[in-house]
Amino acid sequence: MQLPAGFSFSSVAAGIKASGRPDLALVECSPGTKAAAVFTRNRVIAAPVQVGRTALKLSRGAIGAVVVNSGNANCATGPAGLNACEKVCRETAVLLGVPFEQVFPSSTGIIGVPLPVKKIVSALPALISTPQATEQQACQFARTIMTTDTRPKLAWTSVRSRGRECKVLGIGKGSGMIHPKLATMLVYLFTDAKANPGDLKGTLREICDETFNCISVDGDTSTNDTVLLMASGKSNFDMSGHINASFRNALLHVCASLAQQIVSDGEGVQHVIRLSIERARNRAEAMQIARAVAHSPLVKTAWAGADPNWGRILAACGNSGVTIDPAKVDIFIGGQKVCSKGEAWSFDESKAHAHLSQPVCDLRVRLGRGSASVRFYTTDLTTEYVRINADYST
Amino acid sequence: MQLPAGFSFSSVAAGIKASGRPDLALVECSPGTKAAAVFTRNRVIAAPVQVGRTALKLSRGAIGAVVVNSGNANCATGPAGLNACEKVCRETAVLLGVPFEQVFPSSTGIIGVPLPVKKIVSALPALISTPQATEQQACQFARTIMTTDTRPKLAWTSVRSRGRECKVLGIGKGSGMIHPKLATMLVYLFTDAKANPGDLKGTLREICDETFNCISVDGDTSTNDTVLLMASGKSNFDMSGHINASFRNALLHVCASLAQQIVSDGEGVQHVIRLSIERARNRAEAMQIARAVAHSPLVKTAWAGADPNWGRILAACGNSGVTIDPAKVDIFIGGQKVCSKGEAWSFDESKAHAHLSQPVCDLRVRLGRGSASVRFYTTDLTTEYVRINADYST
Repeated sequence: MQLPAGFSFSSVAAGIKASGRPDLALVECSPGTKAAAVFTRNRVIAAPVQVGRTALKLSRGAIGAVVVNSGNANCATGPAGLNACEKVCRETAVLLGVPFEQVFPSSTGIIGVPLPVKKIVSALPALISTPQATEQQACQFARTIMTTDTRPKLAWTSVRSRGRECKVLGIGKGSGMIHPKLATMLVYLFTDAKANPGDLKGTLREICDETFNCISVDGDTSTNDTVLLMASGKSNFDMSGHINASFRNALLHVCASLAQQIVSDGEGVQHVIRLSIERARNRAEAMQIARAVAHSPLVKTAWAGADPNWGRILAACGNSGVTIDPAKVDIFIGGQKVCSKGEAWSFDESKAHAHLSQPVCDLRVRLGRGSASVRFYTTDLTTEYVRINADYST
Repeated sequence: MQLPAGFSFSSVAAGIKASGRPDLALVECSPGTKAAAVFTRNRVIAAPVQVGRTALKLSRGAIGAVVVNSGNANCATGPAGLNACEKVCRETAVLLGVPFEQVFPSSTGIIGVPLPVKKIVSALPALISTPQATEQQACQFARTIMTTDTRPKLAWTSVRSRGRECKVLGIGKGSGMIHPKLATMLVYLFTDAKANPGDLKGTLREICDETFNCISVDGDTSTNDTVLLMASGKSNFDMSGHINASFRNALLHVCASLAQQIVSDGEGVQHVIRLSIERARNRAEAMQIARAVAHSPLVKTAWAGADPNWGRILAACGNSGVTIDPAKVDIFIGGQKVCSKGEAWSFDESKAHAHLSQPVCDLRVRLGRGSASVRFYTTDLTTEYVRINADYST
């Protein structure tokens, strides 16, 4: 791992998770760290998302700490939920000696259950006494924020440009196939480059559109989704004024890796599908079609069976709301054409079946409408997904 | 059953279905019968939908016969598919002695496989020699058009108004949860009332919006969906000029019954959900929210487990694209409030679980935005659905 300078991490078990595993985590940022965030587009917004968004506005992008709990989403909890979140931030701010609005909160877990704020506040002194700028603590942070994830998700790289160097580290947790009542994709991006919050924000938005907004497991957007980018400025990589292209690529690389890790760790996922929608009139309609295909239960169940059923894919495109001309649509599975100009195309069915039996499969749809394209990561829909999500346990 | 005058039915096994079951059916309409149809909104449109739509235009709503095959959808079959469909219509027209444009075709079954036109044409003489205006033949028609349906779907009623009387019969087949490569909802509505095609069309559109457009099993719209209304004019119930309100109600009743039969026969369905979206600003946004809830895999899998998980329902509303205010949303399961103003509401969880364990369950979402509402029928998403649709059999 490559740990960017200026960040230290700690984790404790506050008793929020029934399992007794670590469920409260802290990032302490060195003074001068700037941040930008992108949030869920769901109209139902969890308390920490509201508090975090306001905090970043008030602090003009200055950030001193991130406090994350797993096991409870603090969502659909009303004014009491907002108060609880603010209390956690306030206590953290006091203990760390940073302004209240420089503490950024996140929560992930069950919806509609009051945040156990006393347990969290009691655990804060222990949490705050231990932060370390070590790979081990960063890994522990990645594990602490997990809910139904089966593995921690990290990605990192470094950037060199004209004698300057900086590091980029990303830590995420999955939304993927979301557990009963447990939601949320959380992503934290760390760099020791220096940049203005406004520039960070613009770049983060673009990169999210190309990565986290191009993944889908079950099409449901969480109430708590958050991507937070922090720049400590502790390296000599100064991007004040404009974002360096190599840095942007590095950030894209880290986010793309996390996005793929999140998709492949989706519950019940047997196959990850790399879906390319090509020759669309523009990116927006390509996305619209990608989503229609990625969210069709008929298509997703066919993938679960490694069934090269191009008819369902064509029908899903026809259902997307985009006025496609079916007679111009080609579909490819792996390298093989299976549908040509909207009609059956003679192909090796066992070869297509074998391709779709792999953990990662390629599927291309060519629309014949223009030159725009998107690549979208999605998954199959398995009996295991239904089993997990239908499991009623009270 | 109440068989409207002016229609006779026949069925044969033409060898399209591998099972050898009857797969080719005919309705012969008495001279002077008028018709109107509503078709799929999918951009991928099967050949018979294209041919049938054109035929009704050319004949100005006059109809002489309906010829339906099951076992093959004649979709994604290109110009050859159109030719095949037209050949079947032409041969039927010649044998019956009616104009070509008065023969209305339908197909349902596998997509992307050439229609076995020779088998169908060879079977036409036998099909055409036997039509009978009997309940038995009408029931056999309902069975012949089945694909993965487990039972035939019929509904009927009669209308009396000022000494006049007419009958309404509906026969449908399910889209519900669609079988691998087998698609399509087909509905045929028969009445011996007399009406103009234009009036029939307007009424049929409205009624479809209130019934067939308010059901969803997996959210996928078939390439072949067709609702055809035929009026023989053989009774003294003359509606030339305007559609009688009692007749409209009768037609609504028949369509609502068929819509519910189609939903409850969906593959793998354990629970039918009657979803009421209330206090919306208008019908369009109520439908948008109903669809978002009905198509959320997280919501549908919770229903499979009879899990009163209102958090997922609230999150699905928030994801619908409608700018709801979560703090105004109430959710009810059965008669019981489970979420009040976007927050948890103390409720009897075992009672809610018991309600959701029934074959038909009621779920209400109140938005607090206005006075519009819709009722939507949908289903749970079960492991059985995935098993059936993931089953790859070549």
